[in-house]
Amino acid sequence: MAPEKNNPSILLLNGPNLNLLGRREPAVYGSATLAEAEERAEKAALQAGLQLECCQSNHEGTLIDCIHEAMDNHCGIVINPGAYTHTSIALRDALQSVDLPAVEVHLSNIHAREEFRRQSLLAAVCVGQVCGFGVAGYELAIRALAEHIKKRGSPGN
Amino acid sequence: MAPEKNNPSILLLNGPNLNLLGRREPAVYGSATLAEAEERAEKAALQAGLQLECCQSNHEGTLIDCIHEAMDNHCGIVINPGAYTHTSIALRDALQSVDLPAVEVHLSNIHAREEFRRQSLLAAVCVGQVCGFGVAGYELAIRALAEHIKKRGSPGN
Amino acid sequence: MAPEKNNPSILLLNGPNLNLLGRREPAVYGSATLAEAEERAEKAALQAGLQLECCQSNHEGTLIDCIHEAMDNHCGIVINPGAYTHTSIALRDALQSVDLPAVEVHLSNIHAREEFRRQSLLAAVCVGQVCGFGVAGYELAIRALAEHIKKRGSPGN
Amino acid sequence: MAPEKNNPSILLLNGPNLNLLGRREPAVYGSATLAEAEERAEKAALQAGLQLECCQSNHEGTLIDCIHEAMDNHCGIVINPGAYTHTSIALRDALQSVDLPAVEVHLSNIHAREEFRRQSLLAAVCVGQVCGFGVAGYELAIRALAEHIKKRGSPGN
Amino acid sequence: MAPEKNNPSILLLNGPNLNLLGRREPAVYGSATLAEAEERAEKAALQAGLQLECCQSNHEGTLIDCIHEAMDNHCGIVINPGAYTHTSIALRDALQSVDLPAVEVHLSNIHAREEFRRQSLLAAVCVGQVCGFGVAGYELAIRALAEHIKKRGSPGN
Amino acid sequence: MAPEKNNPSILLLNGPNLNLLGRREPAVYGSATLAEAEERAEKAALQAGLQLECCQSNHEGTLIDCIHEAMDNHCGIVINPGAYTHTSIALRDALQSVDLPAVEVHLSNIHAREEFRRQSLLAAVCVGQVCGFGVAGYELAIRALAEHIKKRGSPGN
Amino acid sequence: MAPEKNNPSILLLNGPNLNLLGRREPAVYGSATLAEAEERAEKAALQAGLQLECCQSNHEGTLIDCIHEAMDNHCGIVINPGAYTHTSIALRDALQSVDLPAVEVHLSNIHAREEFRRQSLLAAVCVGQVCGFGVAGYELAIRALAEHIKKRGSPGN
Amino acid sequence: MAPEKNNPSILLLNGPNLNLLGRREPAVYGSATLAEAEERAEKAALQAGLQLECCQSNHEGTLIDCIHEAMDNHCGIVINPGAYTHTSIALRDALQSVDLPAVEVHLSNIHAREEFRRQSLLAAVCVGQVCGFGVAGYELAIRALAEHIKKRGSPGN
Amino acid sequence: MAPEKNNPSILLLNGPNLNLLGRREPAVYGSATLAEAEERAEKAALQAGLQLECCQSNHEGTLIDCIHEAMDNHCGIVINPGAYTHTSIALRDALQSVDLPAVEVHLSNIHAREEFRRQSLLAAVCVGQVCGFGVAGYELAIRALAEHIKKRGSPGN
Amino acid sequence: MAPEKNNPSILLLNGPNLNLLGRREPAVYGSATLAEAEERAEKAALQAGLQLECCQSNHEGTLIDCIHEAMDNHCGIVINPGAYTHTSIALRDALQSVDLPAVEVHLSNIHAREEFRRQSLLAAVCVGQVCGFGVAGYELAIRALAEHIKKRGSPGN
Amino acid sequence: MAPEKNNPSILLLNGPNLNLLGRREPAVYGSATLAEAEERAEKAALQAGLQLECCQSNHEGTLIDCIHEAMDNHCGIVINPGAYTHTSIALRDALQSVDLPAVEVHLSNIHAREEFRRQSLLAAVCVGQVCGFGVAGYELAIRALAEHIKKRGSPGN
Amino acid sequence: MAPEKNNPSILLLNGPNLNLLGRREPAVYGSATLAEAEERAEKAALQAGLQLECCQSNHEGTLIDCIHEAMDNHCGIVINPGAYTHTSIALRDALQSVDLPAVEVHLSNIHAREEFRRQSLLAAVCVGQVCGFGVAGYELAIRALAEHIKKRGSPGN
Repeated sequence: MAPEKNNPSILLLNGPNLNLLGRREPAVYGSATLAEAEERAEKAALQAGLQLECCQSNHEGTLIDCIHEAMDNHCGIVINPGAYTHTSIALRDALQSVDLPAVEVHLSNIHAREEFRRQSLLAAVCVGQVCGFGVAGYELAIRALAEHIKKRGSPGN
Repeated sequence: MAPEKNNPSILLLNGPNLNLLGRREPAVYGSATLAEAEERAEKAALQAGLQLECCQSNHEGTLIDCIHEAMDNHCGIVINPGAYTHTSIALRDALQSVDLPAVEVHLSNIHAREEFRRQSLLAAVCVGQVCGFGVAGYELAIRALAEHIKKRGSPGN
Repeated sequence: MAPEKNNPSILLLNGPNLNLLGRREPAVYGSATLAEAEERAEKAALQAGLQLECCQSNHEGTLIDCIHEAMDNHCGIVINPGAYTHTSIALRDALQSVDLPAVEVHLSNIHAREEFRRQSLLAAVCVGQVCGFGVAGYELAIRALAEHIKKRGSPGN
Repeated sequence: MAPEKNNPSILLLNGPNLNLLGRREPAVYGSATLAEAEERAEKAALQAGLQLECCQSNHEGTLIDCIHEAMDNHCGIVINPGAYTHTSIALRDALQSVDLPAVEVHLSNIHAREEFRRQSLLAAVCVGQVCGFGVAGYELAIRALAEHIKKRGSPGN
Repeated sequence: MAPEKNNPSILLLNGPNLNLLGRREPAVYGSATLAEAEERAEKAALQAGLQLECCQSNHEGTLIDCIHEAMDNHCGIVINPGAYTHTSIALRDALQSVDLPAVEVHLSNIHAREEFRRQSLLAAVCVGQVCGFGVAGYELAIRALAEHIKKRGSPGN
Repeated sequence: MAPEKNNPSILLLNGPNLNLLGRREPAVYGSATLAEAEERAEKAALQAGLQLECCQSNHEGTLIDCIHEAMDNHCGIVINPGAYTHTSIALRDALQSVDLPAVEVHLSNIHAREEFRRQSLLAAVCVGQVCGFGVAGYELAIRALAEHIKKRGSPGN
Repeated sequence: MAPEKNNPSILLLNGPNLNLLGRREPAVYGSATLAEAEERAEKAALQAGLQLECCQSNHEGTLIDCIHEAMDNHCGIVINPGAYTHTSIALRDALQSVDLPAVEVHLSNIHAREEFRRQSLLAAVCVGQVCGFGVAGYELAIRALAEHIKKRGSPGN
Repeated sequence: MAPEKNNPSILLLNGPNLNLLGRREPAVYGSATLAEAEERAEKAALQAGLQLECCQSNHEGTLIDCIHEAMDNHCGIVINPGAYTHTSIALRDALQSVDLPAVEVHLSNIHAREEFRRQSLLAAVCVGQVCGFGVAGYELAIRALAEHIKKRGSPGN
Repeated sequence: MAPEKNNPSILLLNGPNLNLLGRREPAVYGSATLAEAEERAEKAALQAGLQLECCQSNHEGTLIDCIHEAMDNHCGIVINPGAYTHTSIALRDALQSVDLPAVEVHLSNIHAREEFRRQSLLAAVCVGQVCGFGVAGYELAIRALAEHIKKRGSPGN
Repeated sequence: MAPEKNNPSILLLNGPNLNLLGRREPAVYGSATLAEAEERAEKAALQAGLQLECCQSNHEGTLIDCIHEAMDNHCGIVINPGAYTHTSIALRDALQSVDLPAVEVHLSNIHAREEFRRQSLLAAVCVGQVCGFGVAGYELAIRALAEHIKKRGSPGN
Repeated sequence: MAPEKNNPSILLLNGPNLNLLGRREPAVYGSATLAEAEERAEKAALQAGLQLECCQSNHEGTLIDCIHEAMDNHCGIVINPGAYTHTSIALRDALQSVDLPAVEVHLSNIHAREEFRRQSLLAAVCVGQVCGFGVAGYELAIRALAEHIKKRGSPGN
Repeated sequence: MAPEKNNPSILLLNGPNLNLLGRREPAVYGSATLAEAEERAEKAALQAGLQLECCQSNHEGTLIDCIHEAMDNHCGIVINPGAYTHTSIALRDALQSVDLPAVEVHLSNIHAREEFRRQSLLAAVCVGQVCGFGVAGYELAIRALAEHIKKRGSPGN
């Protein structure tokens, strides 16, 4: 029996340096801390009928571990991979290994930044991408993921 | 007097081949026609307190004309540039010339497709990008644009 | 009822600058005008049991419109995309959207010219390519397309 | 008889987004509108003993049409291709097809801007290039074209 | 006396792995063997008033030898260079050394395949190219070559 | 005294996502778990007169730590670096720092996959590479390493 | 009747310059000649219940011929393509044409050598690759191929 | 109150494999261990009126954590990122997030080594770089950082 | 007192090989010598209310020296850097160091020539560029520079 | 007898545009002139027990001459090659020809600037590099060079 | 006993298409046939006290065989590899395998031709290269090789 | 009257660092000084019925000046451009400007060295190239140039 597979919960995963959100460069990223952003995300998830578990780490290996564990506990992933977006094939393989729909979020519009930030190694294994809208992007991504899951079946029923 | 500048209306612009939406390859893009997608988008706009004008053309020049006209009639643009995303510097210049916030939408996750579809020449002049969520992407983009406009001022008041 | 789908007619589409055929640089391209080339092509089509409709435009958007309209009126396309061969992803998407076999023709041997003329963005969605034989290439392409259509079914019966 | 070939008239062709000249970003491009710029250009032409016809379009196809028509009406072309400078092989082919001397103008110094603006696909078929001097560039280009035509023969006599 | 120079005979040269035609992957390449394809090609040649000699080898050096010998025996070459298309500068030099018109044929549409199959080192020294039409391509190539030879003079008379 | 240097033991190191072996995509990688694969590898090692210690981690830093510790405990390393193969110069430096022979293993034939998987940053500091044979590759690698060590001296005697 | 198809025999194919094995640079490649290496390989094959036929040629065409002939006589191929590894698309096509499993061997670790030796054009059509272990690599490759064949069916029974 | 912000202390951060310093390849890197190098660095810091805290880790995530923590405890960073120099955008982002001056040190002259070691992803967010002088580089870097801090204000007063 | 700063004089600087002007390849560059070209340029300068000092050197270092000296004697520079256009970062730095407006001239249309002549390392620090008009280009450049200076202030008054 | 070889004197060589130091852009480079910077450098040299000779030239050839002459007069070189860093293979060869240790200095952090400034052609023949610390870099470089010379022997004794 | 090793004989090897020398394009390559060129070469060899054996083949494999056989019969090789210069790693490996000095000759100046002809894969294993002097190049190469051999020892004594 | 044009004298031009010949690295370049090499070259010239003038400079500009002066004094140039081979378009333009045949010499085999030494910017304007034979290369080059001049006419008669 694997009832947790049906548990309509999703994982919100934040990568390196996102723990500093709200503390540094508030003029750029707003004054909301990661905790506050996660709180807003949680509300958006609930509105969409989903639970939300949040996790942040600066360690690539820890992010991979979290994705592996999501297999048994969640029905989808919203991930802001931070700088690992552009360098981590291991994260991409992790997402591909667990058979869960994932949505990629970036606070800034990475496609309007330095050349090396315009390529996402994870995009190939994600449903879609939301970028450029600051912390509001988490809410859009959760909404998009919820709709995607609904179309694919009825998780949690 | 330029009261229309305060008119809380936005433009939804669709580029080449999007007129065929819903008619071709329904297994991929769903069975909704462009008209139906625009109708859904209009509802999302209204929910966000905005009017929506829709326009589609296969002609790069016509899309540029539309963007120019938006200066006097709209306070923001949601654009799905279709294949011109990857080839049109002229569209980019048009968006940059008119001083309106723009959000880029793609039905498919362009970053997970052929190499030549992963680069957007327009991204550099857009607020953000939403891709991979089919026609639901229009609603997310409108919502994101609405929130962006709200933060920048109070259009339409 | 969609009897025109079974109508054994094909579209001959010519892109930018081909309207000048026969008028400029006759030493290179021969003295036949586009009209005369289309006439010869029409005879080759009739020999192969097919009707032929001809269209030329310097406008990328108009060429896309023509391809879209071919869906309801033709069972195949012979296209000389001119310079758009190398720059138009939108034309490629148009050909891919309408589910008709297409054959690419070039008057000159584009693979023996400047580097930037050796790549065809449309090749990936075409049955095959004929290049280097001047206006005779249209006749070869029509013959090749006719044989291809015959193998796939019996259009027009 | 082709007396118009001897008609000492030249064409001033402006590409996409140049219709906004003087209206947007006056701090950058000055407050002169396209109409005023064309008026100044006309005076410079007259000083050089040439008539001037002006044309602007955001449509690549329309620009090609204009170049074709210039064959019968003009003895040279001054062209500011805007963003099509960097993407349009079709415009290049059009200029090459009509056997008229052409001079390329850019308001800004394109060689000092983004990498993708430093390449001109049209340069290979133009007499020369003037860039970086704002609307004064049109006058310099007309003067240069006039001198070039004079050296090649005596148009208009 | 070199009467064979006037002999209206052409050479059909097939490169590596084409001896397996019809035997392997019949679903892809059809069930016709190389012998049968050569027979069809011979008929097309006769229809065009030309004799046809056929040759196949997996050895690059043997193909070069054949091309050299064609100087004295043939008035044109139809060549399917197989994989040597993309790697053999020596074959290109051989074609350039003998002053005979050559037409390049490929069974598949090489421009729609892997990146490394899209470049032909031989194209630069060929009249033209036919690809994507299976063994029917040989007939089209022979017809095109015949027409090309006719334009250049009256071989065999 | 450094008797452990002579201890004929080798290290089998598995990188990111390999902990999921046997659990995900059994059709591709077989149904053997990592534990079972390690057991088979151990038998192969014993047959070759070597002890085997196994280690797996998703953390690049932990893998580096393991390699450092191997200096004092092992006389060779078999490593499947997973996705770090293509991105980790740090792992390469670690292997180079400890003066132990290393053999690289990949379950799939990485040279037949996506472009970015065809380059191994570690190859330059390894004795050799075995790839494409699934978990059997571990046995081949151990055998190869054992033979390599034998040639270099008599470990464990 | 094609009983030889069931004959559990494999082909060991060596490419250019490998005939010099053991004679030149013995410090690098060991003092074993090609004949001795083939003898060892034969023993490894017999241990795995397979017969072994050996072939070496400096001629690309001869290697292709050998691969073609293997279709009727062998159930698998071990190939050391020497320098053709990096340049021969024709060998790749030959391996792909005959439907036999192939394993690629290299005496040296090609991925640790000059840039141009790190790419194998054949890898895409091989089961796997063994490199860096000198002539011992032949034995590992034969063992790997034998195991691969066993999994796919029971050749020779 | 954040008096530690004024505490004239700096962080010396060493990345992957630098824990092996002095133990491996003493001919290359000298016989000084990391501990001894840190001791020398500490003396140089004291001479410059600064305290020094030392930290080494093979884990990218741990290095990021250390940089984050430096915000509250140090007024500058000397970092030898080891192999992460060339691959870690996350470390770059970490340095950019905390608003502290950083100096990059490399024991070897990375610009005289393999191509892939000549690019530093961190350079863009550092004050300067010292490389090629072995452990003496730490002393130079500390001296340079001290002078830089002095110019920017009076830390620790 | 630095009255010469207000001296409305400009420097015309010619780089390597331009001393041969008029002597070699008169069919290409015309029969005017450098002296004559400088004379014409001087007249154009006087017409624009400016004095002109001319300098030519084949030595990169001498050209840099001249630019440095211009700081105290001129209010602008017209420079034809010859082949140093494409290779000299030092000239670029020299122009950037002295805070004078500079206009780049090329006799030929460098953008229509060999690939390596299409890039100007100096463009980034120049007001604009004139190329393709032979020695007439000097007059156009002087005129453009004069107008530029006028807009920026009133030199010499 | 070559006593000057033992003379503990070093050469400080400054390349193009560095003569302007302190005069231009003082906000960026400080107000110290080259003379003052050389004076500070001399003091640092004396502290390290070395004499210092200073030389600056905008001429690549003169810099090469200076390096050649250093063979007989100095035991090491500190060089700020200015823009020649990125373009001069001749300077590199000069440094390599004379068998003296050299240290490269750059006032700015060249690795944090334009792409074309990030490569040093001289690095491959230098002991190390110091960059980003303004004129203080000269002192650090002299100190590093002094320590390097001390380790290699006892110059001047 | 291997007296032939001391036999002062060298091999002149000509690659693909060189058998046509003198027969085709005499205006370019002169009217001398390969036989005549070899005769001249033989005279030059005799003058230098060397015997000369000549060999030409269009087959890469035959050229490799010839090089292998040279081990026992010659003390040096002059090779004009024709088009294989640019594509054959196998020829390079052959030259490297036999331990004989080799000199590369090209009739034309390959460095002044198409991009793909400017790279020689064989250069890395040759003493030197002579190109651009037509058949006279053979004589120069023989002379250079003779002098090289003399310096290395006294072949043939 | 330009009798010196008929003067059978040639110029031997040596570029940067070649003044050190024979003094540095005698094991590599031999112990002959530049003076001795020039003496040998002079003898070879005399044997070929030519006078020889020698010139060496480390200054690019001086080398250009020398080439310009050769127009009036010499009938050909042998040039060893040293490191300027790879960086100087100005030298190339100088050679092209003076209409004299030039032969390029390099002491080492530049095509067997670092990537950046394999490209000669001068090759495109030279008759041919000799490299890899040390100072003997000068003699070969003079002989080749003499033969080239003889074929083109009878200088000096």
